[in-house]
Amino acid sequence: MDVAIIGAAGYTGVELCRLLAFHPQAKITGLFEARFLGKPISELFPHLRGQVDLPLRPFSLADVTREAQAVFCGLPHGKSLEVVPPLIEAGLKVIDLSADFRFADPQVYATWYQNHTAPGLLAQAAYGLPEIFREKIRPARLVANPGCYPTSVLLPLIPLARRGLIQADSVIANSLSGTSGAGRTPNPELLFCEVTGGLKAYAVGTHRHAPEIETYLSCFSPAPVKVLFVPHLMPIPRGILSTIYFQTTRTVSDQDIYQFLQEDYQKEPFVRVLPPGLLPNTRNVVGSNVVEIGIKHDPRTGKTVLVSALDNLIKGAAGQAVQNLNIIFGLPETTGLRLPVVFP
Amino acid sequence: MDVAIIGAAGYTGVELCRLLAFHPQAKITGLFEARFLGKPISELFPHLRGQVDLPLRPFSLADVTREAQAVFCGLPHGKSLEVVPPLIEAGLKVIDLSADFRFADPQVYATWYQNHTAPGLLAQAAYGLPEIFREKIRPARLVANPGCYPTSVLLPLIPLARRGLIQADSVIANSLSGTSGAGRTPNPELLFCEVTGGLKAYAVGTHRHAPEIETYLSCFSPAPVKVLFVPHLMPIPRGILSTIYFQTTRTVSDQDIYQFLQEDYQKEPFVRVLPPGLLPNTRNVVGSNVVEIGIKHDPRTGKTVLVSALDNLIKGAAGQAVQNLNIIFGLPETTGLRLPVVFP
Amino acid sequence: MDVAIIGAAGYTGVELCRLLAFHPQAKITGLFEARFLGKPISELFPHLRGQVDLPLRPFSLADVTREAQAVFCGLPHGKSLEVVPPLIEAGLKVIDLSADFRFADPQVYATWYQNHTAPGLLAQAAYGLPEIFREKIRPARLVANPGCYPTSVLLPLIPLARRGLIQADSVIANSLSGTSGAGRTPNPELLFCEVTGGLKAYAVGTHRHAPEIETYLSCFSPAPVKVLFVPHLMPIPRGILSTIYFQTTRTVSDQDIYQFLQEDYQKEPFVRVLPPGLLPNTRNVVGSNVVEIGIKHDPRTGKTVLVSALDNLIKGAAGQAVQNLNIIFGLPETTGLRLPVVFP
Amino acid sequence: MDVAIIGAAGYTGVELCRLLAFHPQAKITGLFEARFLGKPISELFPHLRGQVDLPLRPFSLADVTREAQAVFCGLPHGKSLEVVPPLIEAGLKVIDLSADFRFADPQVYATWYQNHTAPGLLAQAAYGLPEIFREKIRPARLVANPGCYPTSVLLPLIPLARRGLIQADSVIANSLSGTSGAGRTPNPELLFCEVTGGLKAYAVGTHRHAPEIETYLSCFSPAPVKVLFVPHLMPIPRGILSTIYFQTTRTVSDQDIYQFLQEDYQKEPFVRVLPPGLLPNTRNVVGSNVVEIGIKHDPRTGKTVLVSALDNLIKGAAGQAVQNLNIIFGLPETTGLRLPVVFP
Repeated sequence: MDVAIIGAAGYTGVELCRLLAFHPQAKITGLFEARFLGKPISELFPHLRGQVDLPLRPFSLADVTREAQAVFCGLPHGKSLEVVPPLIEAGLKVIDLSADFRFADPQVYATWYQNHTAPGLLAQAAYGLPEIFREKIRPARLVANPGCYPTSVLLPLIPLARRGLIQADSVIANSLSGTSGAGRTPNPELLFCEVTGGLKAYAVGTHRHAPEIETYLSCFSPAPVKVLFVPHLMPIPRGILSTIYFQTTRTVSDQDIYQFLQEDYQKEPFVRVLPPGLLPNTRNVVGSNVVEIGIKHDPRTGKTVLVSALDNLIKGAAGQAVQNLNIIFGLPETTGLRLPVVFP
Repeated sequence: MDVAIIGAAGYTGVELCRLLAFHPQAKITGLFEARFLGKPISELFPHLRGQVDLPLRPFSLADVTREAQAVFCGLPHGKSLEVVPPLIEAGLKVIDLSADFRFADPQVYATWYQNHTAPGLLAQAAYGLPEIFREKIRPARLVANPGCYPTSVLLPLIPLARRGLIQADSVIANSLSGTSGAGRTPNPELLFCEVTGGLKAYAVGTHRHAPEIETYLSCFSPAPVKVLFVPHLMPIPRGILSTIYFQTTRTVSDQDIYQFLQEDYQKEPFVRVLPPGLLPNTRNVVGSNVVEIGIKHDPRTGKTVLVSALDNLIKGAAGQAVQNLNIIFGLPETTGLRLPVVFP
Repeated sequence: MDVAIIGAAGYTGVELCRLLAFHPQAKITGLFEARFLGKPISELFPHLRGQVDLPLRPFSLADVTREAQAVFCGLPHGKSLEVVPPLIEAGLKVIDLSADFRFADPQVYATWYQNHTAPGLLAQAAYGLPEIFREKIRPARLVANPGCYPTSVLLPLIPLARRGLIQADSVIANSLSGTSGAGRTPNPELLFCEVTGGLKAYAVGTHRHAPEIETYLSCFSPAPVKVLFVPHLMPIPRGILSTIYFQTTRTVSDQDIYQFLQEDYQKEPFVRVLPPGLLPNTRNVVGSNVVEIGIKHDPRTGKTVLVSALDNLIKGAAGQAVQNLNIIFGLPETTGLRLPVVFP
Repeated sequence: MDVAIIGAAGYTGVELCRLLAFHPQAKITGLFEARFLGKPISELFPHLRGQVDLPLRPFSLADVTREAQAVFCGLPHGKSLEVVPPLIEAGLKVIDLSADFRFADPQVYATWYQNHTAPGLLAQAAYGLPEIFREKIRPARLVANPGCYPTSVLLPLIPLARRGLIQADSVIANSLSGTSGAGRTPNPELLFCEVTGGLKAYAVGTHRHAPEIETYLSCFSPAPVKVLFVPHLMPIPRGILSTIYFQTTRTVSDQDIYQFLQEDYQKEPFVRVLPPGLLPNTRNVVGSNVVEIGIKHDPRTGKTVLVSALDNLIKGAAGQAVQNLNIIFGLPETTGLRLPVVFP
């Protein structure tokens, strides 16, 4: 199938190029961007040399419609609101990586982002977390690819929420992210000199991924869930480690939790639940579409901890998007996603 | 005054060398070690060239007693239990950087470490957190220098605990530490190749700094405090960032908390409370004896977050030890501790 | 084909596991090691989870012979001298990653390493630099896989040596290497804390890769070539950047050199000669089997500079070994070696 | 004495702030900048909190003249050409950190930079390499502070050039620099994500520090020296390691070279010549004003190697500038420059 990428020169767009270059069924037919027009993507990102050498072109609905059956839209939120509706109209399948179609309720979007100008599309959009919403994704014309942090928090928690095990007001997600999550826009705070050797929290309690986590956790809870979400910027390029704290509604052991997660994820190719005693490290998953989950109930305090690790640009963005593409087109989900982890 | 360092070739011992070399009133007279005997410390650690070139010698009670008035003991826990009692007996002032004399109750030590063989000394030991226990440290012969993580958690929380603001069962300390905290013993897991680019949690709920935090937080609370403490290993050499979550017993604003912390710390040269809206970064304190504290109450979830940053080898170990030395000898606490932060 | 790895738990052995797990024609049947016996390799190296879970076994000639047709030998030099001869005797194809069979002349080996105890095998060994010695490798029973540094220096220089363009006494190779090149043996100098943020040269003029470079460069030169080789340790896990200085025997432009290199390498899937004006970066090749070469003649000084970049564990070790395996077994050289570069 | 900094918010300006805050005789009276006007420097660079909290002001000749006796000018080249002449006119002592007054011959400047608009001042400018030109610096009104790379190359070579030991056409300087050398202007190529884990050469043979090295090396050589200078960008924030290759005019041993360097530098507080067998590491000097030099003659190839390490922002810029300030004002050169190296 022929696919186009809109917003191709950001880190997510470039990662889509990289993954699709190795995808046996997909062919990139067009790269659309507002910057660096005319330049081959591999001139800007030489690691793509010989793999994706297409030039960057200005967005054209006509071109995209003529050349592609499916579109990955890697624009900033707000921009997708403009670009996606005509693409859907034109009959294309769209996987949107922004937040613009992630909330069924346009009010939530309005509260955290801006006024929603295409609320009519929201009912058609599937939230692209395949392990949870596969059946809704399959027939969808529009997939709202999840945020990187929410993917890392929802996959560990939903199996427990489903089983009524999470106290609704108890969840804290302490997340650490590599700097690629902050994008490629030059900003002194993202310079090597400023990031290296440092650790900091940001947007404490106010990050826009909080309502996304709450929305999809609440789907599986008797009561609406409120989550205190605290992201941190880490001196690594890729990877998210989320340490998630909560109270259970009844006493459960590590082994119980392992059982529950395994029931839901045992057959999932991209979720690896670690047996009690083991904990994830981003190094074990970066480069792949895998999320690893570790479990530890603390009997001293009665609190439970889940730790998840994933690659923010793969399972947290481009890899999950390709997984969604595979679902939509009826391919095995792992097509093009058997990716090696580079270590050390 | 003449000082000796026992356990001089670990990262903490070396940091003591570095700081004492610039201390105007202290003179290092002896470096004692079990390894690398006869070698000048500056041969092993060339950054000390021209500053501390003393050779490493095997420990000798007679030598230490003859040459020094004060001793920094940087041995692993369990070893200090053997070495410290005769030093105290011999009339020396001892600042012990292990955990061996941190708990007034030998039972707590026995539970988390091992059987305590010198319980008689515990009553004489002052817990060396100057901003809190200055008056007890001043006359002490034995100072138990706090752990790096506990320093980062106790300094933010104690002012609120004192004011009865912390719900005893609500505290979670999510701490991130540079790898120097893990010491210099070669271990494949600490190799550059394995640490770089990775993020991981370890000892979830079981780290020995948990009871230390609980003990000293409980001193200021009506009820014993239980803390869920989760440390993480970070790909940086130095620095701790602790993100601390808790419920307050009554509604307080960021401004209230700022006020309370300022009341306690305004005159402290080594505690910097950031006004609401600002958050710490380890880069702003690494290299100095300063701890920075940021504040954020989250009205959506009703939870409160404090974030602290310090240099684990300075305020978390050697710097705080020198601060304690200054107190014991009646010097201004900042003597030798006006240290520049190197940035970028 | 069935392959075994001897010395499986070093960084090179682990990288072989990683690559062979994705190789469509090779199957790992045994992992042999002296340490960690009985442990699944994926327990020691969790990035291999689900891909290579075989346990580590003590070396047994009988087992290897029964289970494998080809063997990768990742032992330290000196050890291969013992293990390889009986394997060859038993009819196996051996790709040895040590230096033990790299020198046709046992005297050179004796000078730089130790006495050679299997000189009879040297005549049968092919030096495994496929782009140069493909025809000798094809029928070989024993391939001596090149050193990482020599690969990075020989590939750029040999086309010019062949054309008589290099002044024999002028070559300087200034090489920078990531720390995985130093192996996984715990050593304080390789700890994260010691390596990060630092730059140093080592073994100036005395590194054992110097005679390897000289030997194979001299093959193509009228006069024996002497090379001043200076390696440096870099705070990155993977990657070699070699900046190579020399005088040409006659005036040649950047364009001329580009032409010569292209003549030799245009059809090579793993050598990318950059047009004049572009220079390589290890980031563009790490994770892949590609070597990139940049060219710059400096008219002011009359000297010429070539810069090469490769992944020391792939093109510099395990990837090149798999390339050699492919050659020996008549497979397309790229089989299992179309590897994505992870960026950023 | 009262000093002003013009161009205060670049990395060099900020480093000057940091150093001068600890200087016992200098007082910063004004920070002048074109950007971030009105902001306290410590708001932009929180590591300066409590040490330098002055606001950034637009440049004003009247203000500077009224408030300061000496000025550090940290502007980009070309800008200093405009700002420095009126400052000198007004009777201020100026230490200029740009390249604008480094070349006695305005033609060289014109060739590598741009047309020189204040050639009359060149005769009055002293090249601020104290260990070599101290006597010219002492009475100067204008000091041209050396480039970071030239400092690292000239200090090792000048003692040998003075003794006629360097073959004029043989010098190659292979330099590695941390990214702070590239400044703070946001540029995608300097983002953490792009720099980390990578190694690359740039400006091969064309970097503007080449003529600076040649000019001052030629001062001490019978014949004009040509240097092939190749800088590399390293994934560290601070530090330069220069590996310098050359031929000697007669046979000299490591010990001879050590002797010569010691003759010149033994009493220098900021030059540390390492005995043969030891090599420098940037980690041992970063944070200090020290340059370390290692020596290795390679008898196999007849070439000689010197390796130097320094902190590009201190001995390579701000520290050397303060050293020059001390000289001009008759203070001990080490005043305010006894700086601790932070390790690990």
